[in-house]
Amino acid sequence: MALGAFLYPTGHHAAAWRHPSAQADAGINFAHYAAVAKLAEEAKFDLLFLADSAGARGHDWNSLSRFATHYVAQFEPLTLLAALATVTSRIGLVATASTTYNEPYTLARKFASIDHISGGRAGWNLVTSGNEEEAYNFGLDAHPPHAERYARATEFAAVVRALWDSWEDDAFPRDKASGIFLDPAKMHPPNHAGERFKVRGPLNIPRPPQGWPVLVQAGSSEAGQELAAATAEVVFTAQQTLAEAQAFYRGLKERLPRYGRHADEVKILPGIFPVVGATEAEAQAKFDELQELIHPSVGLTILEHRLGVSLSHLPIDGPLPEAVDEINASKSRQTLMLDLARREGLSIRQLALRVAGARGHWQVVGTPEQIADAMEERFREGAADGFNVMPPTLPGGLEDFARMVVPELRARGLVRADYEGATLRDHLGLARPADRAGRAQHPSAAV
Amino acid sequence: MALGAFLYPTGHHAAAWRHPSAQADAGINFAHYAAVAKLAEEAKFDLLFLADSAGARGHDWNSLSRFATHYVAQFEPLTLLAALATVTSRIGLVATASTTYNEPYTLARKFASIDHISGGRAGWNLVTSGNEEEAYNFGLDAHPPHAERYARATEFAAVVRALWDSWEDDAFPRDKASGIFLDPAKMHPPNHAGERFKVRGPLNIPRPPQGWPVLVQAGSSEAGQELAAATAEVVFTAQQTLAEAQAFYRGLKERLPRYGRHADEVKILPGIFPVVGATEAEAQAKFDELQELIHPSVGLTILEHRLGVSLSHLPIDGPLPEAVDEINASKSRQTLMLDLARREGLSIRQLALRVAGARGHWQVVGTPEQIADAMEERFREGAADGFNVMPPTLPGGLEDFARMVVPELRARGLVRADYEGATLRDHLGLARPADRAGRAQHPSAAV
Repeated sequence: MALGAFLYPTGHHAAAWRHPSAQADAGINFAHYAAVAKLAEEAKFDLLFLADSAGARGHDWNSLSRFATHYVAQFEPLTLLAALATVTSRIGLVATASTTYNEPYTLARKFASIDHISGGRAGWNLVTSGNEEEAYNFGLDAHPPHAERYARATEFAAVVRALWDSWEDDAFPRDKASGIFLDPAKMHPPNHAGERFKVRGPLNIPRPPQGWPVLVQAGSSEAGQELAAATAEVVFTAQQTLAEAQAFYRGLKERLPRYGRHADEVKILPGIFPVVGATEAEAQAKFDELQELIHPSVGLTILEHRLGVSLSHLPIDGPLPEAVDEINASKSRQTLMLDLARREGLSIRQLALRVAGARGHWQVVGTPEQIADAMEERFREGAADGFNVMPPTLPGGLEDFARMVVPELRARGLVRADYEGATLRDHLGLARPADRAGRAQHPSAAV
Repeated sequence: MALGAFLYPTGHHAAAWRHPSAQADAGINFAHYAAVAKLAEEAKFDLLFLADSAGARGHDWNSLSRFATHYVAQFEPLTLLAALATVTSRIGLVATASTTYNEPYTLARKFASIDHISGGRAGWNLVTSGNEEEAYNFGLDAHPPHAERYARATEFAAVVRALWDSWEDDAFPRDKASGIFLDPAKMHPPNHAGERFKVRGPLNIPRPPQGWPVLVQAGSSEAGQELAAATAEVVFTAQQTLAEAQAFYRGLKERLPRYGRHADEVKILPGIFPVVGATEAEAQAKFDELQELIHPSVGLTILEHRLGVSLSHLPIDGPLPEAVDEINASKSRQTLMLDLARREGLSIRQLALRVAGARGHWQVVGTPEQIADAMEERFREGAADGFNVMPPTLPGGLEDFARMVVPELRARGLVRADYEGATLRDHLGLARPADRAGRAQHPSAAV
């Protein structure tokens, strides 16, 4: 069972920053991130995961004034990831970077650089910018349409991988005696000329230790799943029920053969928001304490933002109107929240509080045994290859998970006792892609 | 006297990587960079400096096969800088990033992030891409003209600073009791709509500890000097003779009043390539050892690349043809090399060897006293506010400088015995720019 530690400044609960134990400036507190990363490494997590947004999420500043976590006041993740590489030695390092407002050469270089700095521990969570506020920071008047963003992302990913393959693994003999530093015969510049990008190359850094840094994706829409099936090695997803998680898992794995890929070449890691207590009562008390810290306006703002509709004119203790379903029919995460509201008959207020807590992810409040049971069930029942753990608070929520749940998982033989390899690929059991020469010799070895 | 440590993988000498003591893989060896950065910090350098090129410099791969340092196999500098921030605690951290193929929002965010990670030690060496090979990696068929690149750079710098000023210094109260995380009244999004950029903002990270990371520039052309006079706080430049260095120094400082700036708001740091020995003979022997490692083709390639002309059809022991002067009339660094050749009557071979060694920078081979004398003269005679030290080899050349030259400079009272402040601005004696509210109250306090 693979484990990711999804690091959000003060934790994933919307009111985490108000908790008495919280470092409210966590978003720009490197010592905080370093401590949390080390904690995850000590618990032998496979990877840590950083989200991103190239602009604040939202534009209603009166509402945003109460948010610590809408990408208003946080480190930029690639600089943070590079810094975290030096204070850890084993854990994988995954950061999000959008294909919508970056250039493939720039991102290929940065992830290759972090893979070298970290000795083969880098992963790239490839996303398209879903936050329309970003467009205005990059010269646009409007957010590019979903289909255009995914078309760009698909070509972008191909260019980045071709750039990582610019050099064969042994292209740099660095032979002092002969004075030969590099061997041009082992260079393969992409010379890419596609619909959206024209990139000659070669990339000006040797092939990354992992060949390709691990490619992660988090889009669960139809286009997102197709891109994931074609290119991703890890998929992060939000799934509420076992049945939903199984359907997603099966659906994605079934897409793989069309791209010549096997089921075990993609690890599916649903998010889990675990609130751990030694007893059920203790866990519930922890959760209640956080829920009580949610300012009344915050829950509603999160829900409105997530659904992409205004709800403030509606009775807060009434149900969501039916019309909301149609507006959001194509958006995977929104559908998830609507399903939750319909299934449990939640009022707007109740749904808002639910979403504000775990932000639409699978929430489990309980003892270490109960949480391990829930994870084991999904792992064994074809719903997950592991989980991206979203601690409600940091470092507290991660400490709880590491101290109480990890030993329980280990006792059941679900997670290993120590790292067995050096790279993120090793941790996840993903093959290292052969270089261009290797693929020419053994075409079947291509990833 | 300000001191920069210009870190080039194996050192600045073109054959440094072939030296018996060299780590030939230095460009992607983080332990090497960490050790060298710590060494510079122990010697109380004000800053370390990383150059960049978003593509290999040059395209003749038979020649490039002998180069360790033409940006073929090196870390990307912003990821490296962030990583170095964590293994140092006092030294300033300056990296080069081009305005030609980046977006202002992205760079503003990254440097702000590194300034937060490092506690106020970041600096940005703002350049335009002089290397035409970069264009082909970013969708272009041709290198943008010099004037266009500088016009873009000027607007780019203004947008970046406006983004850094998106938030007043105290815009994030993070008050747990009231639930107010940020104060929108203290937000000032740039809402920039100019000729080349349209950027709404705000930047999604609090104002950097230094207000603005220190802005460095290295272009010495007419347009480069104007941009430096308008915006730079540190200028890195290549100057051969005392007279040339004085003329450049005076010329740049005289431009400042037109932009409402004082002479001490810009620190001019010419490069120095010091080869240090306990005796003159020892220094010369060190230099000769390196020169002998230059492969015959390498010197000529560097010279051709630097001059932008082909010379291989000419007699190598003859002089440069007169026509080369005209081709290069507008390019500051090339003019410098031509002046050197004319002044000393150098043949193509001799100039090639000279340029291959110090790459066109001021080269001083001698004892610690001789090198300190040369530096002191330029410092006292209005030619420099300090120096960007370009060690011939790394770590050896920096160790020599730190162990022998720095104590000599310290004994003369030219450099301090320890850091006196926390930020790069403190080290350099540069004022921290007031935030938007501060500038509104005290307009004269604007930088």
